[in-house]
Amino acid sequence: LTISIAIDAMGGDRAPAEVVRGAVLAARESPDLHLFLVGREKEVRDELERAEWRGDSIEVVAAENVIGMGDSPVEALRKKRGSSIEVATRLVREGRAAAFVSAGNTGACVAAASLFIGLLKAVKRPGIAVVFYTAKNPVTLIDVGANVYSKPEHLVQYGLMASIYSRDILGVENPRVGLLNVGEEDEKGSALAKTSHSLFQSARVNFIGNIEGADIFSGDVQVVVCDGFVGNIVLKVSEGLAEKLMQHASQTIKEAIATLPNSLEIGMALKRAFGSLQKRIDYSEYGGAPLLGVNGSVIISHGRSDAKAISNAIGVAKRMAANDLASRMAEVLEVH
Amino acid sequence: LTISIAIDAMGGDRAPAEVVRGAVLAARESPDLHLFLVGREKEVRDELERAEWRGDSIEVVAAENVIGMGDSPVEALRKKRGSSIEVATRLVREGRAAAFVSAGNTGACVAAASLFIGLLKAVKRPGIAVVFYTAKNPVTLIDVGANVYSKPEHLVQYGLMASIYSRDILGVENPRVGLLNVGEEDEKGSALAKTSHSLFQSARVNFIGNIEGADIFSGDVQVVVCDGFVGNIVLKVSEGLAEKLMQHASQTIKEAIATLPNSLEIGMALKRAFGSLQKRIDYSEYGGAPLLGVNGSVIISHGRSDAKAISNAIGVAKRMAANDLASRMAEVLEVH
Repeated sequence: LTISIAIDAMGGDRAPAEVVRGAVLAARESPDLHLFLVGREKEVRDELERAEWRGDSIEVVAAENVIGMGDSPVEALRKKRGSSIEVATRLVREGRAAAFVSAGNTGACVAAASLFIGLLKAVKRPGIAVVFYTAKNPVTLIDVGANVYSKPEHLVQYGLMASIYSRDILGVENPRVGLLNVGEEDEKGSALAKTSHSLFQSARVNFIGNIEGADIFSGDVQVVVCDGFVGNIVLKVSEGLAEKLMQHASQTIKEAIATLPNSLEIGMALKRAFGSLQKRIDYSEYGGAPLLGVNGSVIISHGRSDAKAISNAIGVAKRMAANDLASRMAEVLEVH
Repeated sequence: LTISIAIDAMGGDRAPAEVVRGAVLAARESPDLHLFLVGREKEVRDELERAEWRGDSIEVVAAENVIGMGDSPVEALRKKRGSSIEVATRLVREGRAAAFVSAGNTGACVAAASLFIGLLKAVKRPGIAVVFYTAKNPVTLIDVGANVYSKPEHLVQYGLMASIYSRDILGVENPRVGLLNVGEEDEKGSALAKTSHSLFQSARVNFIGNIEGADIFSGDVQVVVCDGFVGNIVLKVSEGLAEKLMQHASQTIKEAIATLPNSLEIGMALKRAFGSLQKRIDYSEYGGAPLLGVNGSVIISHGRSDAKAISNAIGVAKRMAANDLASRMAEVLEVH
């Protein structure tokens, strides 16, 4: 069975070169993929040439307009008609592609996916999920910024959808769902948190109650739900802190071993080890963030994505499509 | 000039032993302190005995009731009359102490400080600040949980008060103030963020606009303002992530150097270096979190505080009182 994926070749800080190279990587690894590279035709074809691609499982679809990373999403979609994001999402709507991958403007991807692909029938708001790979379990945090005006029913739907993602894509059995809050007691937090907490009690998820910020990284709860304002800040705090701490740590180590006789050897051993730790905390390694709640498989990758990150994103999009995740979510949400 | 500080001897996971030891440490270091240790008289006197304290700059004030870490703050204050928190904050109200330090129930400390010490005249809501020590500058984040129902005018007052704290206690000249948001553009974020952004434009602080989560750790902005719900989650995410990352890093290092000939020597050098890094990110090292907006100097320490953390907290409280920080804040807020 071939799975078709529409890729925004113009999305991200390093597009189109790294996006095209990522698509080529994925196409070489998985012969059962059919990839649409959507973007400025000449640029995309030039990059394919540079990557020495000769196969027929990559198809170039022309879209001459590009929405920039800093553009206002809704305005850009209205004014820049026929953008790569629009054309790619329309391929999903038309059924020609089962999935959409972009490292471009997040807001524009969310808006285009909602508008052109469409939301699942029962879904009120789509949500962006990211996965943290803790020592114990992968933890799915939702929403990290699709929706900054969340209502309690949105949060409950996020919990339902992310539970399915966690189970079917990440392999977590009966994932435990926690509501991110300022304390564990039931009556804690904002009005949104309190009402969400009581709605979650009767939701068909494995709800374990409120959790605090530090609990995200324990791995004991595998789905963490919050509104998009809080989630976006949590994601960026985590990225920023991890980066700074790793910088500090390597500087500290460098100084500590400088006077030891075999400092070069030690340095190399530690560099290798730290590289693997860095990978573990770099979520772009894992292929980007699924947008849950739309009628298709959508992955929004980090703006800084390189070819490998894009190829990983395509891999996750493929698994979401192969599992027909959107339909499963639709079923669960409708009986709810 | 002697500065008097009321200390909740019963507050925190390791009270009264570590609190009393911390007070003794501080009293030995600073002869210009007068400390009230408020708590169960016999227990406190026994600990003073154990610490071999003989001086007269520590005075025990009896308070037989104790509010537990898990107690509901307002209810506990109402039912457990004469608690150590109540008696200590009343010492500030009566002018017998200039400052209050507790490692106890945060909510109860905020409520007692508001109720018994009282808010500064213009202040609508007090806010808890914490300081992150980045490579460049100390960064003051406010509010981390005093007030989960923030309004725009509360956030502006937090910015004003934390600027004074940053300048007078942390030595940051003309601190740059950022509003924590989901994007840097002016029109980004929740309704609270948008209105706060426009109010900040005309506030007498060095407001530089919206910042994102990752910017907290750059040190380029020295005061970060957000509502107590978001701030509490940011604080706990940071603590939790830093702890896990340091665990990972030391495990990674241990494995990487295990096969090297002088692994013991390397291990010891790295352990020392990591210890100092750990201290840098452990905010309890720096004496806890000031509660800004009350009519006195209040420090709320981490529940896990040991003697050293308590002694540091007393040191910060002393500097706040010596600078008469509360009066300075009152002046700035009133002309506002």
